[in-house]
Amino acid sequence: MTTSPHHSPGPVPAPGPVTAQAPASRRNVTPVNPARGTRRGLGVDQVSLAAGFWKTRQDANSTGTLQHCIDWMERLGWLANFDRVAAGTMDENRPGWQFSDSEVYKLMEALAWEYGRTHDAQVDANFESLVDRVAAAEDDDGYLNTCFGHPGRPGRYSDLSMGHELYCAGHLLQAAVARLRTKGEDRFVALGRRVADHVLREFGPEGHAGVCGHPEIEVALAEFARATGDTRYRDQAQLFVERRGHGALTPIPLLSPEYFQDEIPVRDTETWHGHAVRALYLAAGAVDIAVDADDTELLSALQGQWHRTVARRTYLTGGMGSRHQDEGFGEDWELPPDRAYCETCAGVASLMVSWRLYLATGAVEYVDLMERTLFNVIATSPSPDGTAFFYANPLQQRSESSDVLPDAVNSRAEGGVRAPWFDVSCCPTNLARTLASWQSYSAAVDEGDVAVVLQYAAGEYRFELSSGLLRLKVDTTYPNASEIHLTVQDAPDGGTPLRLRVPSWAIDAQVIINGGPATSIQPGWFDLQHPVAQGDEIRLVLPVEPRLTWPDPRIDAMRGTVAVERGPLVLCVESQDVPAGITLDEITLDPSAPLRADGDGARGRAKVLHLPAQAPGTPPFGRAPSGEPTSQEFDLVLVPYHRWAERGPSMMRVFVPVADKASHAGEHPRKAERGARADGQ
Amino acid sequence: MTTSPHHSPGPVPAPGPVTAQAPASRRNVTPVNPARGTRRGLGVDQVSLAAGFWKTRQDANSTGTLQHCIDWMERLGWLANFDRVAAGTMDENRPGWQFSDSEVYKLMEALAWEYGRTHDAQVDANFESLVDRVAAAEDDDGYLNTCFGHPGRPGRYSDLSMGHELYCAGHLLQAAVARLRTKGEDRFVALGRRVADHVLREFGPEGHAGVCGHPEIEVALAEFARATGDTRYRDQAQLFVERRGHGALTPIPLLSPEYFQDEIPVRDTETWHGHAVRALYLAAGAVDIAVDADDTELLSALQGQWHRTVARRTYLTGGMGSRHQDEGFGEDWELPPDRAYCETCAGVASLMVSWRLYLATGAVEYVDLMERTLFNVIATSPSPDGTAFFYANPLQQRSESSDVLPDAVNSRAEGGVRAPWFDVSCCPTNLARTLASWQSYSAAVDEGDVAVVLQYAAGEYRFELSSGLLRLKVDTTYPNASEIHLTVQDAPDGGTPLRLRVPSWAIDAQVIINGGPATSIQPGWFDLQHPVAQGDEIRLVLPVEPRLTWPDPRIDAMRGTVAVERGPLVLCVESQDVPAGITLDEITLDPSAPLRADGDGARGRAKVLHLPAQAPGTPPFGRAPSGEPTSQEFDLVLVPYHRWAERGPSMMRVFVPVADKASHAGEHPRKAERGARADGQ
Repeated sequence: MTTSPHHSPGPVPAPGPVTAQAPASRRNVTPVNPARGTRRGLGVDQVSLAAGFWKTRQDANSTGTLQHCIDWMERLGWLANFDRVAAGTMDENRPGWQFSDSEVYKLMEALAWEYGRTHDAQVDANFESLVDRVAAAEDDDGYLNTCFGHPGRPGRYSDLSMGHELYCAGHLLQAAVARLRTKGEDRFVALGRRVADHVLREFGPEGHAGVCGHPEIEVALAEFARATGDTRYRDQAQLFVERRGHGALTPIPLLSPEYFQDEIPVRDTETWHGHAVRALYLAAGAVDIAVDADDTELLSALQGQWHRTVARRTYLTGGMGSRHQDEGFGEDWELPPDRAYCETCAGVASLMVSWRLYLATGAVEYVDLMERTLFNVIATSPSPDGTAFFYANPLQQRSESSDVLPDAVNSRAEGGVRAPWFDVSCCPTNLARTLASWQSYSAAVDEGDVAVVLQYAAGEYRFELSSGLLRLKVDTTYPNASEIHLTVQDAPDGGTPLRLRVPSWAIDAQVIINGGPATSIQPGWFDLQHPVAQGDEIRLVLPVEPRLTWPDPRIDAMRGTVAVERGPLVLCVESQDVPAGITLDEITLDPSAPLRADGDGARGRAKVLHLPAQAPGTPPFGRAPSGEPTSQEFDLVLVPYHRWAERGPSMMRVFVPVADKASHAGEHPRKAERGARADGQ
Repeated sequence: MTTSPHHSPGPVPAPGPVTAQAPASRRNVTPVNPARGTRRGLGVDQVSLAAGFWKTRQDANSTGTLQHCIDWMERLGWLANFDRVAAGTMDENRPGWQFSDSEVYKLMEALAWEYGRTHDAQVDANFESLVDRVAAAEDDDGYLNTCFGHPGRPGRYSDLSMGHELYCAGHLLQAAVARLRTKGEDRFVALGRRVADHVLREFGPEGHAGVCGHPEIEVALAEFARATGDTRYRDQAQLFVERRGHGALTPIPLLSPEYFQDEIPVRDTETWHGHAVRALYLAAGAVDIAVDADDTELLSALQGQWHRTVARRTYLTGGMGSRHQDEGFGEDWELPPDRAYCETCAGVASLMVSWRLYLATGAVEYVDLMERTLFNVIATSPSPDGTAFFYANPLQQRSESSDVLPDAVNSRAEGGVRAPWFDVSCCPTNLARTLASWQSYSAAVDEGDVAVVLQYAAGEYRFELSSGLLRLKVDTTYPNASEIHLTVQDAPDGGTPLRLRVPSWAIDAQVIINGGPATSIQPGWFDLQHPVAQGDEIRLVLPVEPRLTWPDPRIDAMRGTVAVERGPLVLCVESQDVPAGITLDEITLDPSAPLRADGDGARGRAKVLHLPAQAPGTPPFGRAPSGEPTSQEFDLVLVPYHRWAERGPSMMRVFVPVADKASHAGEHPRKAERGARADGQ
């Protein structure tokens, strides 16, 4: 066999014709199953992880996070809210925010995917136990919410801007989709139909022309339509998407319409803005509508938004959201490393959008961003045992101080300490459902018979192709090592096409087929020239040597710094690895010194800066400091960003200043030091 | 006469003994009149401005801002809230935030100082008209608040954390102090006594051990004690200061105790943190307590907080508050120019603290910071006609877009457009009271007979010394020009000591006495060696040539940039002054090219950067961009920061990148461009 390049589709292909009626069978055990187009992700039960990076994290999710979430929601009364509604005892004093029901539903979605992957009876029992309590709180007409519409509580839909009722309903529907695809029709799926039908009655063409302040119902109804085959739900999702952007929501003091994506219609938007999770959930739903309704104009707008946002408002980690204020996107080039919000949920939401755009277009850049986000946002948030989490994922930590409490509800985890639970605790359950369904994003089938490997992990990938079964065994310790061995264990008669993703960072990638010569391959899609057959062995080399990565000069907050990456991993410097007596503030990286791999991190060369003596009583500005570093140098240890603060609170930075001799070279001579206290005082 | 240096007091001098019982006379027509210590600011009626920078702004305050504030508070019903309480018709629907009463009181304080300075009968009538309405809303027991304690409203003191009741009472008391000192005992001062007495009954040693979520009552009670001579008020202020920092406030979701300065006692605090205005108002009150109670430990702690905060958490403009989130201080070195909050009110509050520390210690650095803040925060906020304002004062504006509405209540002025009024409209009235009393901060008397000039403006300064009257005429166009002529028009028999402030930035300053030789003087205090007598002429030269100012290398957000200052003015680049076809994103300043003065701004040399081509579909990071600028160069126009956006919305930056050849010099050679789409896609 020899290799040949494959040309990927153009930037804005229309979705293909409907290739199959969206089936309500267990075969499509995946969160996203478009009604149109040629690509589908594998089911969560079609990839078995053997070991390695994602296996470790999925196991921690299974053994740690799922039960942890149940325990905390029990402890805080968020689950008992359903019991109280069922018993008619809900009143003014209801624990949890107005959206706490959604955490229960996101956890149920996680349990459903977990069951779909593992068929673990205990997981199923946990799911059923939650169904008992949730279903008991349903009103006669299908309305289900523990915060609104009960005695002593605000009325139904009395606060669409901030009430999150449709948001909660959306997460219930996403859990119902997961249940339907992993176990089939049951009482929870039937409950989901009643909840969805209630939404249609209230907000349909003849109903209230409102939208929810927090998008989510859109993407949920779209997928519920796909899972049930009932297109009324898709029509309703489309209605919600189209209503938005015309001032549909009641203004809220101190929150602009932009916060809610309500100042401009989705199809007229150039870049994502406002609250990051809201913007991305809405975009995910809009992609679903664009695909299923064959709305190429809308799909093109969403692709443009993705490109513009990724190019100017996205961190090296894939993190999105530059502002703590309003948990929002910043302006173009506004990417502060220290105050990067990069909410874990925005990482989840970014995966949702990129995955849908990949399925819609087949373009590799969407999957590249997913890998970046998976390794550097999704993998960063949870602790190794899956029971503590980062809410925000900054790229720089200035102090070791933290007021995170180890066994308490925290405001937001800052200061480099993962917290067990949050006042607004959206991230743990969002991670849970994402990690439980990781398999679905790892590989795809295109045009019914092209097997596509998107993310590399040791294990077995099973592609159910139109021509038969392709079983691919993958051996690798990627991303720690460069080599990925793929062995074809079963293949359809006559072989079948295989497509591999070569990440955009993989310069000098090579492939060796069946022990033949090494062939250089370029980033993008690599299509094997000949169909693969049982026994074929493919050795893919994606060099994970450490490399310097420079920020665009328009990113003011990163000027004069450089980062180190290694394969898909962003690296960082932690204060524990800096020699005693030196602070992170005074370290520069020498970009001319070689970088070398070290464990799963790297080593470079640090030089220590002269810090200027500051004139007392003046702000920290004055004459040019010496640009020359001191003579002190040391080996700079860089560790994967996803592991930061695992050894305890630390100061940390991803972008390290570079020694800089030139910028002050032209300084005007000064007779006296500016701002110094004069003798005459 | 020849000159001799004067040695200023050490860093932590104890306040001197009580030199005079705080009198309730009209002689101390000044906002701050400590019960102990040797220094007093001049009265607002002791300096007459003739022309120039501050005269222009004070006139705009008189003719524009004062009536503008009355009009807006009438339009929005904030004034009518008092009428409704008086009529017993207040109910659930009350316009304005819970603290809107305070805006009325801050305006009344402004009117009182304005009357004290001008004796304008219309100003007095406007004040009396407001007293009519405010006084009618007083409850029988001296409680006065339109938001709490009425039918349909929350109960008195039912929300100390966020209710702002004591905050409002504090601003009423500051207005009463101004009235007492500018007109004497009257019905409003009597009302103030009843309000203060109510606070003492409710929160005294035998009462509720609470504090207000927003400090202000502390500084107000302390001054009310000074103005009335009733030390019970000071004792209560002290109680409030000492209670704080022990978790006195009920926790609020998503707001940490640090936000309220309630996690650590004032005297144990190392640096200001949390909400900037809260922190600074509290510090101002604590200085008053420390001085009047002769608490040297507390005073020393506050001086340390000032030094630490100024050295690490203060912008070049003097602005404080690095975060929009929680309107708060950031961590040390966290000083983003684009997201600088630098609330106008924090600038006012910073003046309050620095002024009190100058009076307490005599150290020049406090006055230096005041000059910086006056010219670059206070003068930046209002429009030339005093009817529109910046709420936040960032040092960089990335886009010209703004959603500020010209005749409406705005959320916060962003996008480079001053707004007429705000939803939370604390800044206009805070500016009004500060500008109305500018005179009091411009000069002081030390030890009863040393006249001290602190801020230079054309006009007449009248020092009432123990030995007699010193009248000093000042002719200058400072800060536009370097020369300041001081003529002694009257002096006590035998002459009197004169002390001049030489700003910390004034390298190569000179003084010429009575046409004698020019003598070099150093920044700090300059004491004339011999007493000044009638007819003496002093020519002070503070060179306002443009100069480069470099950020401390620990300020990550400003690395690789430089600012230009001119005298006390921070300059900036606005997009209107950049040649067509060039954006602010691609401009660098050549630090080796000479700067030259140009009007009230400067000119330097700009070079235009190569902007890198970005790999599509990837975040804005990759291989090193070319560090070499293009061959394009042009004259870079720099204008005073306080004038930015006066010509309409603009992109703006204070810190301009410098061309930087060295930082990428050691780049590793790359075989292919990282992140580029390969041919094989």
